[in-house]
Amino acid sequence: MKKEPQQNLHLIFNPKTVAVIGASENPAKLGSHVMKSLLQDDGFRGRIVPVNPNGGEIMGISSVSSVTEIKGSVDLAIVVVPAGAVPGVFQECGKKGVGGIVLITAGFKEIDDPAGAELQSRLAEIAMAEGMPVIGPNTFGIVNRTIDLNASFTPEFSHVERGGVSIVSQSGGISHLLAFMAMKEHVGISKIIGLGNRLNIDFAEILPYLVEDPDTQVIILYLEGLDDPRKLMDAARNTGGKKPILAMKAGSAESGNRASLSHTGSVAGRQEVYKAAMIQSGILPMESTEALVDIARALSLCPLPAGPRMAVLTGQAGPGMVACDTCERYGLQIASFQESTQAAINNLLPPLAIRTNPVDMGPAWYDSAAIKGIMRAAAEDENTDGILLLMMFASANRGAVSYLSDFLLDWRQKKPVVTCLVSPAGIWDDEVLRLERAGALVNLPTPERAAKVMASLWQYKHKTWR
Amino acid sequence: MKKEPQQNLHLIFNPKTVAVIGASENPAKLGSHVMKSLLQDDGFRGRIVPVNPNGGEIMGISSVSSVTEIKGSVDLAIVVVPAGAVPGVFQECGKKGVGGIVLITAGFKEIDDPAGAELQSRLAEIAMAEGMPVIGPNTFGIVNRTIDLNASFTPEFSHVERGGVSIVSQSGGISHLLAFMAMKEHVGISKIIGLGNRLNIDFAEILPYLVEDPDTQVIILYLEGLDDPRKLMDAARNTGGKKPILAMKAGSAESGNRASLSHTGSVAGRQEVYKAAMIQSGILPMESTEALVDIARALSLCPLPAGPRMAVLTGQAGPGMVACDTCERYGLQIASFQESTQAAINNLLPPLAIRTNPVDMGPAWYDSAAIKGIMRAAAEDENTDGILLLMMFASANRGAVSYLSDFLLDWRQKKPVVTCLVSPAGIWDDEVLRLERAGALVNLPTPERAAKVMASLWQYKHKTWR
Repeated sequence: MKKEPQQNLHLIFNPKTVAVIGASENPAKLGSHVMKSLLQDDGFRGRIVPVNPNGGEIMGISSVSSVTEIKGSVDLAIVVVPAGAVPGVFQECGKKGVGGIVLITAGFKEIDDPAGAELQSRLAEIAMAEGMPVIGPNTFGIVNRTIDLNASFTPEFSHVERGGVSIVSQSGGISHLLAFMAMKEHVGISKIIGLGNRLNIDFAEILPYLVEDPDTQVIILYLEGLDDPRKLMDAARNTGGKKPILAMKAGSAESGNRASLSHTGSVAGRQEVYKAAMIQSGILPMESTEALVDIARALSLCPLPAGPRMAVLTGQAGPGMVACDTCERYGLQIASFQESTQAAINNLLPPLAIRTNPVDMGPAWYDSAAIKGIMRAAAEDENTDGILLLMMFASANRGAVSYLSDFLLDWRQKKPVVTCLVSPAGIWDDEVLRLERAGALVNLPTPERAAKVMASLWQYKHKTWR
Repeated sequence: MKKEPQQNLHLIFNPKTVAVIGASENPAKLGSHVMKSLLQDDGFRGRIVPVNPNGGEIMGISSVSSVTEIKGSVDLAIVVVPAGAVPGVFQECGKKGVGGIVLITAGFKEIDDPAGAELQSRLAEIAMAEGMPVIGPNTFGIVNRTIDLNASFTPEFSHVERGGVSIVSQSGGISHLLAFMAMKEHVGISKIIGLGNRLNIDFAEILPYLVEDPDTQVIILYLEGLDDPRKLMDAARNTGGKKPILAMKAGSAESGNRASLSHTGSVAGRQEVYKAAMIQSGILPMESTEALVDIARALSLCPLPAGPRMAVLTGQAGPGMVACDTCERYGLQIASFQESTQAAINNLLPPLAIRTNPVDMGPAWYDSAAIKGIMRAAAEDENTDGILLLMMFASANRGAVSYLSDFLLDWRQKKPVVTCLVSPAGIWDDEVLRLERAGALVNLPTPERAAKVMASLWQYKHKTWR
C-alpha cells in the first residue's frame, strides 16, 4: 500500500537529487529562474538534473528529456512546464517513483475556466495513486535554508539568513514580503513554503511536519480562505503547543473577499470566528505582517518571561514612558523593585534622576559601571520577569551599548531582554546585531514594537492571547 | 517696550551669529558636542563664537571670555554652562541684547530639589524682562536643516535629509528616535526642536511660529504632560488648519505618569480628553511613533485624495487583500471602475487574472505596456481618488517598477499614489527613492502601513479623524 502523501514531505525538503522539469536558459521562462535559484553561489549541494525535451546543457548541466531517464532515485521534482503538459509529467514522475513534487505552474483551480479545476482534480488523482506529496500548483516553490535548498523561482531567497522561523503562506506575494522583511531585520529562516492551490498538501498537512521538524522553532502561517478550517484547527490542537504557531488571516474586506473567494455568511463574523478558533487551537492570531515578523523573531531568540513584571531601563525618559504605555495596554506590569535593587540603583544615579521603575539612566551615560550596575540589579531582582531596555543614540552616550555587552552575554537566556537601541546607521548596528545573534537580546526599531513583542512573549507563555 | 519672547523666534532659527557659552574641546563635556554639531562638514555658514572664561582657541576658533565681548549682534546664544552659572550668563545675554537662547543645561524645574524650580523662575524673570525667547532648559537643542544649523549636542542630526517636516518634542529621546527614523526612511526634515522644561517657549508659542514658517509643511508634536493644555489647543485652533499638525501624547500608563508627573484625575480619562480636544482643535492624534513618521512623510509629499475611493493595483493577490482589509478598516472604499476602465484592463490582462478592483497584475509582470496601461486606466478613472500600488520583487518582475516610472513622474501630484514596493536591498530601492523624491509616490514597507497612510490622507482631507 502506498504511503499518505504527507509521509514523504521530508524528501521534498531534504532531497539528494532534484529534477527540474521545464528547466530553461531563457530568462523569460520561470524554468530559468528556478535553475538560477538552485545554482546560487551558496547553493544546494545535492544533484540537480534539468529535464527538457530539447536536451543539451542547461546552465552548464547536461539535461535529460524525461524524468524517467534519470539514473538513481529522484527525491524532488520541480515542475514548471505549461499546465496542459503537467498530467503527462505527473504520470512520468509516478512511474519514476519521485519522492514529491513542487508544482510551480499556474492555470488550475484558481482560474475562472472550470477546465482548470478539472485538470487539478486529475493531477490530484495521479498524485494520490502514487502517494506523491505536491506543493502547489500555482506557487513560487519552497526554500529550506537549513540545507541551502532554494526550490523556487526567486533566487534572492538564498540570501535570507538561516535560523528557526518557518513561513507557510497561501500567497506568494506575502511570502516574498515576509522573507524580504526577514532579510532586512536579520530574522533567521528555516523554511519558506508557498502552498499555492494545495493539491494534496494543505496547512493541516504541513503543520505536523513543521512541528516535528528539528530545524523549525517558530511557525508563521498566512491564510486567506480555507475549504475546511476545522482541519487546520484540529492539526494545530494536536501539536499540543509544542512550538509557537503564529497566524495572520487576511480577507476581512468585502472587496478582498470578492476578489479571491466566494464566501458564505457574514464577513466580519467570519474573521471573528477564525480568531476565536485559532486561540482555542493554540494558534496565536496576528494583526499585521509587521507583528508576524517581530514576534516570530523574538520567539525564536528569547527565553519566555516567567511573569508579566517588567523592568524598564531607559537612556531617556520619553521612550520609557511610551514603552510603559504600551506595556500596560497589552497586559504587562511595571515591576516594583525589591528594596535592595532600589538601594543599588539609588546609589548609582543622582537624586535628580527618575530612579524608580522606569529607570532613566540618562545621568549615567558616561558611566560604564553605573549602567552595568543598574542593568544587573534590575535583571537579578526577583520581582522582575523581563527587561525592556530603550536608549537612543546621542553622541555623548556612544559607549553605552558596549558597556552592557559583557553583562548581556553572560545573562542571556535567563530572562528575556527586549531592546529598542536606535542610532543612525553604522554606529550601534553591528554591536546590537552581534548581541542579537548571540541570543543576548532582541532589538526592535520603536519603543512600542519592543513593548508589544515583550507582551506577546508573556501572552504566549501565559496562554492569554488576545 | 520689549517684545514678547516668541516674536524673536525667527532669530533663534535663522541666526547670523551664534555664541556657544560653555564651548569646550573636552569630549566629556556637552560643550564639545555642541561645537562639533555647529562645525559639521555640511554645517552652519554664519559666524560661530565660542565663549569660555579660559580663553584660547576652541576647535580652531578664537574664543572670548564673555558674550558681552562679541563684536556685532548675537542672534542665538547656546548655553551649556553648569546650572548655577546660568543666571549670570542670562544677565550678560540680556546686556548684550542677544536675540534668543537655547539652554541645554539641566538641573532646573525637572529635579526633585525645589531649588531647581526657583532657579528656573529667576531665569524666566530675566528672559521676560529682556524679551529673550528661551528654548529649554534641559534640552538637546534645536536643528534647522533648511539653513544647516545644528544647535544641539548631537552632531549626527546634521545627516538628516532636508525637507518639510518639523518635529517639536517634550522628550529629547523621542526627538532622537524620530530623527533617526526619518534618516532611515528618507523623510525630509526642516526643524527639530527640543522644548525641554519650556522656560518661556512652550508648544503654544512654537506652533504659530511653525505654522507661519515657509520651510515647514507638516508639524509633528510629541507631548507628555502640559501645564495648560487649553493654550496649545487654542493655538492650534487659531492656525485655522493651515498645515497638518500631528500629535502623539504619551503618559497613559500609570507607571509612566508616576515617573514624570503628579497627575490629577483618572489617567485613562485624561488620555481620552486629550484626544477629543486635539481632534476639536484640528490636531491629528497619532497612536505610535511609527504612524507619526509615516503619515508626516506622506503629508509632506503627496496630494490629498479628493474622496475615499481607491484603486488597488497589485503584483500579487495577497498583498492586495491585506491592503483592502486595512482600507476598509480605516474608512476607505475600494472603487468601482468606470466601464471604460474595466474594458481597458480586461484587454490588458488574461481572463484568469483578478481584473476587477483590486487588480492583480501578476500575469503582466513581463509586459511593460500592460502594466503601464493598467496604471493609467486606474489613475485616470473618474471613480478613483487615489492609487495603492503593491508589488513584491520576485526576480521575474525585476523591470516592473521602471516600467511605471515615466507614467508616475508625469502623473505626480494629480492623485495620491501610495506604494508598497518591496525588494531585497539594492534592487528597487534607488528607483523607488528617486520617484519618492520627485513627488511621484510615497513608499511604505508593508501593505498595512501603505493603506493606513492613504486612509490618513483622506481623513485629514475630509476632517474625519478618528
